[in-house]
Amino acid sequence: MPHDQLRIDMDRLMARLEALAEIGGFEGPDGSRGNARLALTDADKAGRDLVVAWMVDLGLDVRVDAIGNVFGVRAGARPDLAPVMTGSHIDTVRTGGRFDGTLGVLGGLEVIETLDAAGIVTQRPLVVAYFTNEEGARFAPDMLGSLVHVGGLALEEALDVRAIDGARLGDELERIGYVGPWPVPTAEPPAAFVELHIEQGPVLEAEGVTIGAVTGVQGISWQELTITGQSNHAGTTPMRLRHDAAYAAAEVAVFVRRLAGEIEGQLGTVGSLSLQPDLVNVVASRATLTVDLRNTDEDRLQLAERRLADFLVELAESEGVTVSARRLARFEPVVFDDAVLALVEATAKRLGCSTMRLPSGAGHDAQMLARVCPAGMIFTPSVRGLSHNPAEYTDRSDLELGANVLLQVLLDLADRA
Amino acid sequence: MPHDQLRIDMDRLMARLEALAEIGGFEGPDGSRGNARLALTDADKAGRDLVVAWMVDLGLDVRVDAIGNVFGVRAGARPDLAPVMTGSHIDTVRTGGRFDGTLGVLGGLEVIETLDAAGIVTQRPLVVAYFTNEEGARFAPDMLGSLVHVGGLALEEALDVRAIDGARLGDELERIGYVGPWPVPTAEPPAAFVELHIEQGPVLEAEGVTIGAVTGVQGISWQELTITGQSNHAGTTPMRLRHDAAYAAAEVAVFVRRLAGEIEGQLGTVGSLSLQPDLVNVVASRATLTVDLRNTDEDRLQLAERRLADFLVELAESEGVTVSARRLARFEPVVFDDAVLALVEATAKRLGCSTMRLPSGAGHDAQMLARVCPAGMIFTPSVRGLSHNPAEYTDRSDLELGANVLLQVLLDLADRA
Repeated sequence: MPHDQLRIDMDRLMARLEALAEIGGFEGPDGSRGNARLALTDADKAGRDLVVAWMVDLGLDVRVDAIGNVFGVRAGARPDLAPVMTGSHIDTVRTGGRFDGTLGVLGGLEVIETLDAAGIVTQRPLVVAYFTNEEGARFAPDMLGSLVHVGGLALEEALDVRAIDGARLGDELERIGYVGPWPVPTAEPPAAFVELHIEQGPVLEAEGVTIGAVTGVQGISWQELTITGQSNHAGTTPMRLRHDAAYAAAEVAVFVRRLAGEIEGQLGTVGSLSLQPDLVNVVASRATLTVDLRNTDEDRLQLAERRLADFLVELAESEGVTVSARRLARFEPVVFDDAVLALVEATAKRLGCSTMRLPSGAGHDAQMLARVCPAGMIFTPSVRGLSHNPAEYTDRSDLELGANVLLQVLLDLADRA
Repeated sequence: MPHDQLRIDMDRLMARLEALAEIGGFEGPDGSRGNARLALTDADKAGRDLVVAWMVDLGLDVRVDAIGNVFGVRAGARPDLAPVMTGSHIDTVRTGGRFDGTLGVLGGLEVIETLDAAGIVTQRPLVVAYFTNEEGARFAPDMLGSLVHVGGLALEEALDVRAIDGARLGDELERIGYVGPWPVPTAEPPAAFVELHIEQGPVLEAEGVTIGAVTGVQGISWQELTITGQSNHAGTTPMRLRHDAAYAAAEVAVFVRRLAGEIEGQLGTVGSLSLQPDLVNVVASRATLTVDLRNTDEDRLQLAERRLADFLVELAESEGVTVSARRLARFEPVVFDDAVLALVEATAKRLGCSTMRLPSGAGHDAQMLARVCPAGMIFTPSVRGLSHNPAEYTDRSDLELGANVLLQVLLDLADRA
């Protein structure tokens, strides 16, 4: 069979997706099936172990690096050439779906098994990777594993990161047995990196398009704000004498929404918020909240950050509170490699898929790999644009087309000298 | 010594206040000393045990009722007459001070010891009480024990109340050993009830007045709101497609502040707020928050409740979320007995104290007792109006004057036929 006729086995891919989804699986609203495998928890370890077992079954050379990233290497005909890498992540948010990240990792394994079944040996080695703590739901920043892999964050600093539950990343990594011998940052970047992922947004579905050729990733700015006011009795303290951290936090959340409406292409979210002492009849003395700002344009993202900072100064003054900000993550917008982008687009067309170019709203490991090699991404549609939600869903036929585009793109890249 | 020359022993009162403050004591900011004895916790039990031990030392007949209220009874010359009761509470909020509640209870014990030392037997029996869960910081509603005592809440319903930590009130009461044989509601209301308490607000200090004669208590409306939206990816979900429970909760908190500015005498507080899944990069699917509304005028309090309800309907519509409200507590404004009010005022003047009439912003057990007998309160100033805060403070000289006013008021009431 000519290589360009080769197709993946969707039953096999689906079986792996479903087996992995059993780990940390839970029933969501309306009978949906969610996944909770926060990074470096027992559930994450169980998921990692399962994927490693599959890699071993496929005869891959499994390599774990010092930050717990895992690489399954399939030898090529030309070991002197740098490999082509694909992959993504298998950690999830607390209310995650089944395909976020896992599609890219298990899609990669399916490509390997398809090549094995066809007896094909590519020129370059092929690598399927999953990276540590992509979601950032337990440890900040997100995409931490791939960031360390490419040298964007020092290993020691990453190991010292504290989880939202207080645990130290390095301790958790050791606890689950995923401190490996391979060095970071990597000394041998791949020849190219391509990541298959669900869109997690509504664009492809709205446009009736099956395959997204991803132009880049918007910039991300995460901050944690701590607002300190004065706890006091809710029944006896006149409104004008209050220094109410809860009210100030609410003003921030409302401002962030307004900001998103005023700056082109701006997204803004307050997703985490907690109060102290958190009692019905006590004016809050402290609020801790996060602000997630994103924009595909770095200048506009900086504008949003400046306007928020100005607002916080005014708010502190008017409410008589103090506000401190801690940066959790900051990534500039990323532009993916033109050649990879064109290849994804052309391959999708060749396979008869409708396709369009679009930027990614979410951060992805591919944006970190883009620092060290030509990188790109393939998107499949998300029904109703839902993601980070148990109801996250992509039609089986779309998953299959995405995996076939990945197969063909990897074949093409791996046979280029 | 003529009875009107009798004075309490401030060293003795202070020693008891300090000993009780050791239990659940913690160091607050700036070296302040806070108290955390949430109702029916181990710390509350330890505090209760200490006060019961003092009651026993003073020869009081200690009676515990079925909701854990504790009464120390000192016999009078005329056992046929209904007793005069004083008291308050010894539970605290999580960030409580030293004198909130305890002043009224230990001030009552100090009155007893002063009478003992002077060999005085009053005509009527005297009772010093502390009531269960006055603060409402662990179980709603607040003033639960005194409410059950006067028949405002059925015992079974009260025992089934769930704590913010999930525990059942009846189970916790049993666990700490404070289920007593005395029936509720009480069949024998006292002849009068007078409660000594710190103001917990800034009025007395601002007016330079030492003793507040409390005219009544403002109405209290507590609700818990649950806002349900849709969890989604913070980086890929366009702002216009969001159903963001966190943003909606923030709008509520901002609205409550605005409401307080628009309705005369209105207070409004969002003191408790939590999100799910509470992650930096996930649009919140659920927010749970409390709204505390207070007004001395029932009509205006009802107006505030209606305006909030209308706002919640609009908010649910505009943000595409659902909002459900659960009532945690609702008490109409209370007007204290004219004769008790006049007696407090006259006694304060007789003792050379500056005095003024003022309503209470906070709820108090006295407002429940007012349902079954003439009731009133004596306030002492709170420095900077701080309360429910480790920095809550009242000058020793003001505490002493308050306790002496209580002594003289109780002597007067207990010798009336």
